[in-house]
Amino acid sequence: MRLQHATWPEIEAYLQRDTGIIVPIGSTEQHGPNGLVGTDAICPETIAWEIGKRHGVLVAPTQNLGMAQHHLAFPGTISLRPSTLIAVLRDTITSLARHGFTHVYFLNGHGGNVGTMSAAFAEVYADRSMRFGPQPAGELHLASGNWFAGPRVRELSASFYGDAEGSHATASEISLSWFARPEAMKEVVMSPRIAPVGSAQCDADEFRRRFPDGRMGSDPSLASVEHGQRLFEAGVADIWENYRAFAGRS
Amino acid sequence: MRLQHATWPEIEAYLQRDTGIIVPIGSTEQHGPNGLVGTDAICPETIAWEIGKRHGVLVAPTQNLGMAQHHLAFPGTISLRPSTLIAVLRDTITSLARHGFTHVYFLNGHGGNVGTMSAAFAEVYADRSMRFGPQPAGELHLASGNWFAGPRVRELSASFYGDAEGSHATASEISLSWFARPEAMKEVVMSPRIAPVGSAQCDADEFRRRFPDGRMGSDPSLASVEHGQRLFEAGVADIWENYRAFAGRS
Amino acid sequence: MRLQHATWPEIEAYLQRDTGIIVPIGSTEQHGPNGLVGTDAICPETIAWEIGKRHGVLVAPTQNLGMAQHHLAFPGTISLRPSTLIAVLRDTITSLARHGFTHVYFLNGHGGNVGTMSAAFAEVYADRSMRFGPQPAGELHLASGNWFAGPRVRELSASFYGDAEGSHATASEISLSWFARPEAMKEVVMSPRIAPVGSAQCDADEFRRRFPDGRMGSDPSLASVEHGQRLFEAGVADIWENYRAFAGRS
Amino acid sequence: MRLQHATWPEIEAYLQRDTGIIVPIGSTEQHGPNGLVGTDAICPETIAWEIGKRHGVLVAPTQNLGMAQHHLAFPGTISLRPSTLIAVLRDTITSLARHGFTHVYFLNGHGGNVGTMSAAFAEVYADRSMRFGPQPAGELHLASGNWFAGPRVRELSASFYGDAEGSHATASEISLSWFARPEAMKEVVMSPRIAPVGSAQCDADEFRRRFPDGRMGSDPSLASVEHGQRLFEAGVADIWENYRAFAGRS
Amino acid sequence: MRLQHATWPEIEAYLQRDTGIIVPIGSTEQHGPNGLVGTDAICPETIAWEIGKRHGVLVAPTQNLGMAQHHLAFPGTISLRPSTLIAVLRDTITSLARHGFTHVYFLNGHGGNVGTMSAAFAEVYADRSMRFGPQPAGELHLASGNWFAGPRVRELSASFYGDAEGSHATASEISLSWFARPEAMKEVVMSPRIAPVGSAQCDADEFRRRFPDGRMGSDPSLASVEHGQRLFEAGVADIWENYRAFAGRS
Amino acid sequence: MRLQHATWPEIEAYLQRDTGIIVPIGSTEQHGPNGLVGTDAICPETIAWEIGKRHGVLVAPTQNLGMAQHHLAFPGTISLRPSTLIAVLRDTITSLARHGFTHVYFLNGHGGNVGTMSAAFAEVYADRSMRFGPQPAGELHLASGNWFAGPRVRELSASFYGDAEGSHATASEISLSWFARPEAMKEVVMSPRIAPVGSAQCDADEFRRRFPDGRMGSDPSLASVEHGQRLFEAGVADIWENYRAFAGRS
Repeated sequence: MRLQHATWPEIEAYLQRDTGIIVPIGSTEQHGPNGLVGTDAICPETIAWEIGKRHGVLVAPTQNLGMAQHHLAFPGTISLRPSTLIAVLRDTITSLARHGFTHVYFLNGHGGNVGTMSAAFAEVYADRSMRFGPQPAGELHLASGNWFAGPRVRELSASFYGDAEGSHATASEISLSWFARPEAMKEVVMSPRIAPVGSAQCDADEFRRRFPDGRMGSDPSLASVEHGQRLFEAGVADIWENYRAFAGRS
Repeated sequence: MRLQHATWPEIEAYLQRDTGIIVPIGSTEQHGPNGLVGTDAICPETIAWEIGKRHGVLVAPTQNLGMAQHHLAFPGTISLRPSTLIAVLRDTITSLARHGFTHVYFLNGHGGNVGTMSAAFAEVYADRSMRFGPQPAGELHLASGNWFAGPRVRELSASFYGDAEGSHATASEISLSWFARPEAMKEVVMSPRIAPVGSAQCDADEFRRRFPDGRMGSDPSLASVEHGQRLFEAGVADIWENYRAFAGRS
Repeated sequence: MRLQHATWPEIEAYLQRDTGIIVPIGSTEQHGPNGLVGTDAICPETIAWEIGKRHGVLVAPTQNLGMAQHHLAFPGTISLRPSTLIAVLRDTITSLARHGFTHVYFLNGHGGNVGTMSAAFAEVYADRSMRFGPQPAGELHLASGNWFAGPRVRELSASFYGDAEGSHATASEISLSWFARPEAMKEVVMSPRIAPVGSAQCDADEFRRRFPDGRMGSDPSLASVEHGQRLFEAGVADIWENYRAFAGRS
Repeated sequence: MRLQHATWPEIEAYLQRDTGIIVPIGSTEQHGPNGLVGTDAICPETIAWEIGKRHGVLVAPTQNLGMAQHHLAFPGTISLRPSTLIAVLRDTITSLARHGFTHVYFLNGHGGNVGTMSAAFAEVYADRSMRFGPQPAGELHLASGNWFAGPRVRELSASFYGDAEGSHATASEISLSWFARPEAMKEVVMSPRIAPVGSAQCDADEFRRRFPDGRMGSDPSLASVEHGQRLFEAGVADIWENYRAFAGRS
Repeated sequence: MRLQHATWPEIEAYLQRDTGIIVPIGSTEQHGPNGLVGTDAICPETIAWEIGKRHGVLVAPTQNLGMAQHHLAFPGTISLRPSTLIAVLRDTITSLARHGFTHVYFLNGHGGNVGTMSAAFAEVYADRSMRFGPQPAGELHLASGNWFAGPRVRELSASFYGDAEGSHATASEISLSWFARPEAMKEVVMSPRIAPVGSAQCDADEFRRRFPDGRMGSDPSLASVEHGQRLFEAGVADIWENYRAFAGRS
Repeated sequence: MRLQHATWPEIEAYLQRDTGIIVPIGSTEQHGPNGLVGTDAICPETIAWEIGKRHGVLVAPTQNLGMAQHHLAFPGTISLRPSTLIAVLRDTITSLARHGFTHVYFLNGHGGNVGTMSAAFAEVYADRSMRFGPQPAGELHLASGNWFAGPRVRELSASFYGDAEGSHATASEISLSWFARPEAMKEVVMSPRIAPVGSAQCDADEFRRRFPDGRMGSDPSLASVEHGQRLFEAGVADIWENYRAFAGRS
């Protein structure tokens, strides 16, 4: 069930039976020579929509922009500052809490969002903890999960790509994005075949010096729609398991 | 051409021939008994993607959240504060300007965003105007257009609905959203047939008192997919005309 | 009745009989070769004070600084960033609401403030809408009106200046400011007689390139104190009509 | 010379011969039973305008709102938060520095502004100190002076009122404001004759408990227009002396 | 070498031979019945000072306040909001970068700081990445390390406490803090012996409901000064190894 | 009693008998050729700890970073922006108020903090004054005191150093810091013997031009540990007297 496709009376009815919601969050950033700029948003969105369909969980609109400052030397990247992303997440959570949502789960597609999401959750809780006296509202549970970090997905990635998986513009995410958008698949020869490894903790110019074509340790020419389909099924299973435990769904 | 479906080398190539981009911006807010919560994002997104397809203009990911504080008493609405939306737009524009985009056009689906978008543009320009000495970057043109305010769309709306068009959850936008998402169409009887009129300048509780089912002056039971298709064609023509004049496209 | 000239017990007494207030808001910015830097503040202030005198409405001190970043390449301009102006308006409204004012009307003299004022009102309402549970305070109505946009003033402007009115440093505002400050009248020959037209949505350096002497489409050498007096009377009538409807004054 | 009454070419000419400016800054806050809400703005404004007239110094529009949170339990008070006032002063100074003003002198009428003004100056300088590499602009000298703290004014106050001067709603400031606005003079019997003394460092409710009619240690029933005139002359002399030393005027 | 105990000419000389610095960062928060409120600051500070002594690395003053909102229902806790801590770290890094420090290593004692530190580093880098054109400064490497997460410390903790180590108010950190401050050691019987486990992602009231005496999964009655000494040596070795690799020290 | 060395149950017990706390606040900034970068934090911390020991008052961890932007051209200085320091103090005070502390006394070692501390207190009070209706919490008294400004310390300083005391890197503070950290004493010949005098209200580059070795009007070669001991005793007596009056301690 997608929030964008529902009416408010339908959401009102949903809240009578369930108070959990999944918010896909990604990034708009370069993903190497053959990866889509939208990869990090498309991947969690695709998995979230499927969970919404299979299990009836409500899915919010995708947060397409994330914290991608280190990719800004590659055209097409759009980044929020961490402080901006904190404000966005805070307003999102506050809006949902007002309606009575008690379990908000961010399904994330971008490692660079993790620290800022954690800071954002703490900012929301600090609003409550620092306003002493009677609290403004009831329970509020926040969690995030990375689609690429569940056990089934990690096992598949390892079996498909081994050391060529890398950490950015990975063959796994490229495969999943192509499964979701087969019309956007591109064939590109990688040179070197496996990209250099290193730290992404730096500014944009330095990042491009370290990783000239945008990949980090990966060989995404190994990606395929078939792999994507299997990663998709694994991701749906991983995240549903994780979400159920979080939201107390049977 | 959708940014999310392109690689960075494709964007680099695009920038050699064109430096304009369209950013769809909407809202996630109640749209009355039969309107989708995503209406304001779906409508401009649909038009933007078609312009991208027909005319080769690059289209950024949709900004799904807007300034919708007055709708927060209806479940499903997610609002950014104006100050948050300003930060989001500022980071978006700054990112695009870094890559060499000179014309950024926000295709808007929500009247409530207009003031804040204008403030955001001024905030970006003030960054330049108040940092005297050699300026950090070249030309930067910003504009916004409402898909529902062009001449062809307004003429169609008037002919279809006359006084029953209203100003929120209008039959026009419901029609266009159904054209874009026919599977999400709903049949709901409206009572009263035409919703009350009034000002939306108030907080959420007051808004719900004034407009009990969320509509403002409209009868969206008149909406249809057929109307939606004609509004879509009108919107594409209106906005393309407007964008061309802005971006200097022949 | 001017707030600056009242004591607090007088304001306490006023609040027993009326809970509306007018806040003049302008800008400090270049107004072409013969226009005063204070034009945009002087014009609404003059009209507000007269309404205060004739109709007993309370008038707050004038907000002399507005959003004028695009004029900063002309000496004398002082601009607030939109985010700063939002903070100022928010604190102003919060202060007034604490005392029990329920209708706050900003009488504006500067087109460049409009978007930011609208964002500021939404920021204030969002404070209420996003703090769910028992609301902190009672009704709060916010509105703004431009002195130059009422029917009587527009008709006079058209009859006096026709196409030479323009959109910045207009003959109308120069006339009204001279009526208010006849000692500051200046005779300057304009060259060209009518200034170029165009968009003000740009940074300060670009604005000065587009509009070399600061005027936009106007011939303010047509201005006169006599015109100013008639515009003043028209403005007082227009705004009083508008304010009465807003504040429910009989 | 008042900035509001000048054209931009006149300011351009002024900057050829002088790069100093005086900015009157006050507050909009209760001043006891017979004091005007505008006292703290009217007093420095009146002195600044006279210095502008006698000595040709440019005078900016008055900053009418200051940091007055502790007075908010008395109707009519409008306060900025310190963080808002810092933003206002920063934008003001940045705007003036862009035009080439090198000496900006804030003529202050409100003790409660002093700490925040000092913080604002440091915020502006920190912008420069923390942006290493070539500095964005030339010299920038900032200073503030309280009209009530110069030697001539203090001597007069002591001789007129002795211990009944107090520290808020003082007989001195009431006198000066009446000299400036004789039409707004009020006769009110004070009870007790001399108000209680204490600290103003508290919130608004506590302030009103400590100082029930708003005065602090003062007997403003001793005020008179005649005193006001002598204080005015003393203030003009004190501030001119102070400003000359600051701005290096001969 | 401690920055607080050096003169500026000594720092100038240091920068000729080394451009790395260690900044201890902790928190001021409850640590259960027998743990010190200062535990999280004392532990990294103690290790940092020893590294400074043994290896000549410069050590900045300890950042005593961290992100501890979830502990605020226990008296003595002082927390910064994430947004405040980001500002503190950004100013700290900007100051150090101005002097020519190129490697800034935050030695952390509090798990709750990790997300916010990561967001703060990204905020600093975004300042560079989003200000396109010639960059304001040279290389800048940022890293953080948790004293309790190195291999030697983890091995010791496991051997000393096994499952009774827990995740807050752990026996390891209590031991180290007692080694550093033996005069502050306390004997307290724990009940239950091992505290409940669970998530700390919640607000302060909820945290205290989940963890009534403040401990999470730990039995800190196992702590001792002797353990502390061995953990200290292990921590110094772990962090020095980590810092050397980061800063390129031989 | 030091907060860092206490457990939360000890703080809970303390709050039963006393609700006052002392927060040492300093700066990390150059102090001339022989003064420690930590002087401004070490001095108040030393006095606060002694008061804590002698009189049982609780002492919070030291705020080591202050507002020191003007010292940033000397290596080793770390400055917070005023807006950052306001946020830090606001969070500190809010945290303490939540626990029931009613009297928070900042014992300050740096003149440059004074304005910003005052602004921070007002920001905290404004949070209360502008949130009308029932206030969020009980009484809250805030005060600050400079260790160097009490009568006993000033008398000693005058008798030891006369005109050579100066206003930054003074012989008094150097003496006290050496008494606290005798191992960090340095012998340096001053040239000129007494440093130039002037205003510190400027940016960092200008400050270094005005005060080439960092001292302002002082001859800190006169400092000694013996002087430091006497200043320490005088400071403890001055501040205890001041704190007692503030906190109502008998």
